[in-house]
Amino acid sequence: MTEVRPSVAVRPLQNRQVRVLRRAVGVPTPDVFEVVDSPMPDPPSGGVVVRVINAAVDPAMRGWLSAEPNYLTVPDGAVMRAHGVGEVIASDCPAWPVGATAYGWLGWQRFAAVAASDMLWPIDLTVAPAEAWLSIFGLNGLTAWLGLIHLARPQPGETLLVTTAAGGVGGVVGQLAAAEGLQAIGLAGGQEKMQRAIAELGYARAIDYRAAGEDLRSRVAEACPAGIDIFFDNTAGALADAVFPSLNVGARVIQCGTAAVANWLPPPLGPRRERDILVKRLSWRGFVAFDHQAVFPEAQARLRDLYAMGKLKAHDEVLDGLDQAPSAIQRLYRGENHGRLSLRP
Amino acid sequence: MTEVRPSVAVRPLQNRQVRVLRRAVGVPTPDVFEVVDSPMPDPPSGGVVVRVINAAVDPAMRGWLSAEPNYLTVPDGAVMRAHGVGEVIASDCPAWPVGATAYGWLGWQRFAAVAASDMLWPIDLTVAPAEAWLSIFGLNGLTAWLGLIHLARPQPGETLLVTTAAGGVGGVVGQLAAAEGLQAIGLAGGQEKMQRAIAELGYARAIDYRAAGEDLRSRVAEACPAGIDIFFDNTAGALADAVFPSLNVGARVIQCGTAAVANWLPPPLGPRRERDILVKRLSWRGFVAFDHQAVFPEAQARLRDLYAMGKLKAHDEVLDGLDQAPSAIQRLYRGENHGRLSLRP
Repeated sequence: MTEVRPSVAVRPLQNRQVRVLRRAVGVPTPDVFEVVDSPMPDPPSGGVVVRVINAAVDPAMRGWLSAEPNYLTVPDGAVMRAHGVGEVIASDCPAWPVGATAYGWLGWQRFAAVAASDMLWPIDLTVAPAEAWLSIFGLNGLTAWLGLIHLARPQPGETLLVTTAAGGVGGVVGQLAAAEGLQAIGLAGGQEKMQRAIAELGYARAIDYRAAGEDLRSRVAEACPAGIDIFFDNTAGALADAVFPSLNVGARVIQCGTAAVANWLPPPLGPRRERDILVKRLSWRGFVAFDHQAVFPEAQARLRDLYAMGKLKAHDEVLDGLDQAPSAIQRLYRGENHGRLSLRP
Repeated sequence: MTEVRPSVAVRPLQNRQVRVLRRAVGVPTPDVFEVVDSPMPDPPSGGVVVRVINAAVDPAMRGWLSAEPNYLTVPDGAVMRAHGVGEVIASDCPAWPVGATAYGWLGWQRFAAVAASDMLWPIDLTVAPAEAWLSIFGLNGLTAWLGLIHLARPQPGETLLVTTAAGGVGGVVGQLAAAEGLQAIGLAGGQEKMQRAIAELGYARAIDYRAAGEDLRSRVAEACPAGIDIFFDNTAGALADAVFPSLNVGARVIQCGTAAVANWLPPPLGPRRERDILVKRLSWRGFVAFDHQAVFPEAQARLRDLYAMGKLKAHDEVLDGLDQAPSAIQRLYRGENHGRLSLRP
């Protein structure tokens, strides 16, 4: 066993954490969390203590905090689960010595005492800043690559429509689509995001779904004169309803998120899709990135190549301090973020 | 060009046809059709005249006769389109000489003057009777094989649930499932069909969805204690709603039909599926058999092998005379048929 070396951090000497107090109904509100000071941790046996440089704020967290069944749940009393990037400051794990930088399940806290299995992969902060390792090289980038490239198998010239085009995943999907020779159409909330989707995120066209209102269905049809071959859906709900009539025969629908529907117990009503699925021979797939870890290296290599070629850029907004954490998920669902949201704890 | 040989049929000297008069709203009623006598046809250039021995009655015909967009439409004034089996009685096509027997697009009529492209494949009436070439070796059998084997890729020991288990496709799906080592659970309308599904069609268990009523969801859960890995859905609607809660993570949903929903313009409302698709990582696919013609020979070889081994049996009901044709689709949707329905014109 490696000797536990003393922490190199001299201030704060105290840890700070965001803990979960109760189940959230719909979008988690600040009262779901408490911010607490706690003692500096020691590394668990075989694990490490990491100084968290950046911690993620993700739409998926709503599901983790819900009483509804989900692929992942953060129980009451636990530190809020989150991906993060950080630097090892104390180690009982030869694979992750002091000074190593990594992406992993670090949580919303200043110092994370974690098992080696929560340290997902090494990062190199000389290649890109910490927040970029959470966004384009993190779960956002992997999710975008998996949904678009690995599952939808796009062909050059195909038309792709993406909901929340300017979001953390959508922003990478648009840039990947441009690199693959696809026509990418983005739905985004507000003029500023719409323009950013076109100017910075690889989208050929974009639609402000808020301004479109009831006309969204015809606006989508106009923006996709050849129909839609791939629908990368991050929202579900009314936005998806406006897209389905424009799907082509053989279209692939990739369900990456359901951000537009706040409560799923019971599921809200919507137009039945069975006839579209049959007549248009659709293929509709849901996925969770961690089901596909075997192809992460392929995805990461491609994402780094595109970044090196200048074809993939990071678009991040970093909140300063854990006090901003309890309202951060709300901020995301209100669409107030500009780029991929993370916290500097 | 081959000489047109005289017909070998001596009576009737007249043709009889069922023609489409108008669009159907929902399930086609008798007034959608007219039965007319017409002159004996000559073969079209390069085509044949076939004496129709059996003509299919299919749930899909509702879609063909609807004003709604569909993958196939039979226009007003045309002879009702249908698969059939028959014998060539006059030929201008060397590939299909007089006396040849075939499966093809023959329509609801006694004598079909068709192009060679409508003659789909040869059949051998010494192997199985005419109606079996329409059912287990025809589109029903191919559809069952494509959905279950080609698209859902079952693994031995998996649990399969099939709606309209005792129907033309469902009856073959159950028998294929048994041959593949799957646990097949069938939904069927009425005690008699339920019992037939178990006794004759390969199902391990079956549920009478009419008797189950509001309890269907819990009845499905009880019948599938290990959950459902493959959902072969022929109905959509309320039956499918009762099945979705029992789907396992990674389940494949094969949308083969939508028989339980009469009108799709506009689509009726149902529980939104996006969350299930995401959280359970479902794969939901629609298909139309003729998109997969490349694998028909593989499917047909397997179906004939199973038939020869006694593991696949035909279950057919044959209506006698074209006068029964106009009400035949209604009969199907009322569940009054016993086995795969066809017409002897």
